[in-house]
Amino acid sequence: MVANPERRTALVDAGIEVLALQGARGLTFRAVDGQAGVPVGTASNYFAGRDDLLRQMDARLHVRLAPDPAVVAGLLERPRDRDLVTAFMHDLIRRATGDRTGWLAMLEMRLEATRRPELRASFTRSVRADPVEGMEFQRTAGLPGGDETVAVLYLAMLGLIVEHLTLPGVLDGVLPGVSVPDGLVDRIVAAIVPDGPDGPGSPNGTGGPDGR
Amino acid sequence: MVANPERRTALVDAGIEVLALQGARGLTFRAVDGQAGVPVGTASNYFAGRDDLLRQMDARLHVRLAPDPAVVAGLLERPRDRDLVTAFMHDLIRRATGDRTGWLAMLEMRLEATRRPELRASFTRSVRADPVEGMEFQRTAGLPGGDETVAVLYLAMLGLIVEHLTLPGVLDGVLPGVSVPDGLVDRIVAAIVPDGPDGPGSPNGTGGPDGR
Repeated sequence: MVANPERRTALVDAGIEVLALQGARGLTFRAVDGQAGVPVGTASNYFAGRDDLLRQMDARLHVRLAPDPAVVAGLLERPRDRDLVTAFMHDLIRRATGDRTGWLAMLEMRLEATRRPELRASFTRSVRADPVEGMEFQRTAGLPGGDETVAVLYLAMLGLIVEHLTLPGVLDGVLPGVSVPDGLVDRIVAAIVPDGPDGPGSPNGTGGPDGR
Repeated sequence: MVANPERRTALVDAGIEVLALQGARGLTFRAVDGQAGVPVGTASNYFAGRDDLLRQMDARLHVRLAPDPAVVAGLLERPRDRDLVTAFMHDLIRRATGDRTGWLAMLEMRLEATRRPELRASFTRSVRADPVEGMEFQRTAGLPGGDETVAVLYLAMLGLIVEHLTLPGVLDGVLPGVSVPDGLVDRIVAAIVPDGPDGPGSPNGTGGPDGR
């Protein structure tokens, strides 16, 4: 194992590119070397095997697609209302469309996980962090809605991203006058998230630790 | 082109199996022949090329995953309330989990469509029929909610199916006491669909042709 962090990251990013462009079957060390523009045999010095490469791609994707802490801090200056949830969802969409290759590679990795139990176990843990941390964040930040709101919102946003990144024409104009993806994000939040601060009185609001 | 409809369907189904099991790169005429248990060279007598096979797989998947008319007719005996929408969504999930291979093949086809513009155009048309016909059906049947309700529900169900079929462990137990996928379907409908018949007074209800 060679310890050159920059080159390792470049190889992992090349693996993500190969996975998105060619699918799981195209992901070989040779293809990664080619994509990274390094001599054949380089990737095999950095990864114990294909599963090791896939696990490092998974970890890297979570970094690439993660929110920018400065953006989160800026948004948290605002009142804790439904508009703020909308703003967070716009940021999520901006990150997904801004790294379409990374997101498509994640979708390929989901399909590869259906074939490889070992990958499925580790990938399940990392993907599960998204809804679980989303619920935690919603509670800590005091955003409107409870755990159920976050779960349903998570699924609708997942559906929107899958649809928009794979077949953008499907949603285009299905709701006249509603832009895709941003106008649709507004409609998703309006349909799912209660309009007002979280609390016992708000629809779906489970308020506080009891919402667990 | 040979005209033996049963054998053609068997080859198309074999193609769906190969696509789900091995990914797009594994989908060759030779693999389809092998999966169908027919002599090498058979598939090439039935399909003009790989794109032709993929188009026929797309058409076939829409038949395999379509609602059973008898089930739809039975459900339409019931009052047009939110519970009925829930029942239709349970049927959708039942079909998706009942033909997991077909559904995973559709997801593979989405990814293949990102690489092949010709497939993207025809696949966009066929997938777009789902939300568009869903809106039409909601209106004609007089179910609660308007076009926006249907669009958001469509996306949340898409997200649920993608998550549950690729990484079933992700959603398991994220909402304590809520079963996956059925309990989660109940929560999705409760969060998105107004409780009451469609009409000008119902939340999100756009009622009638104006909802277009």
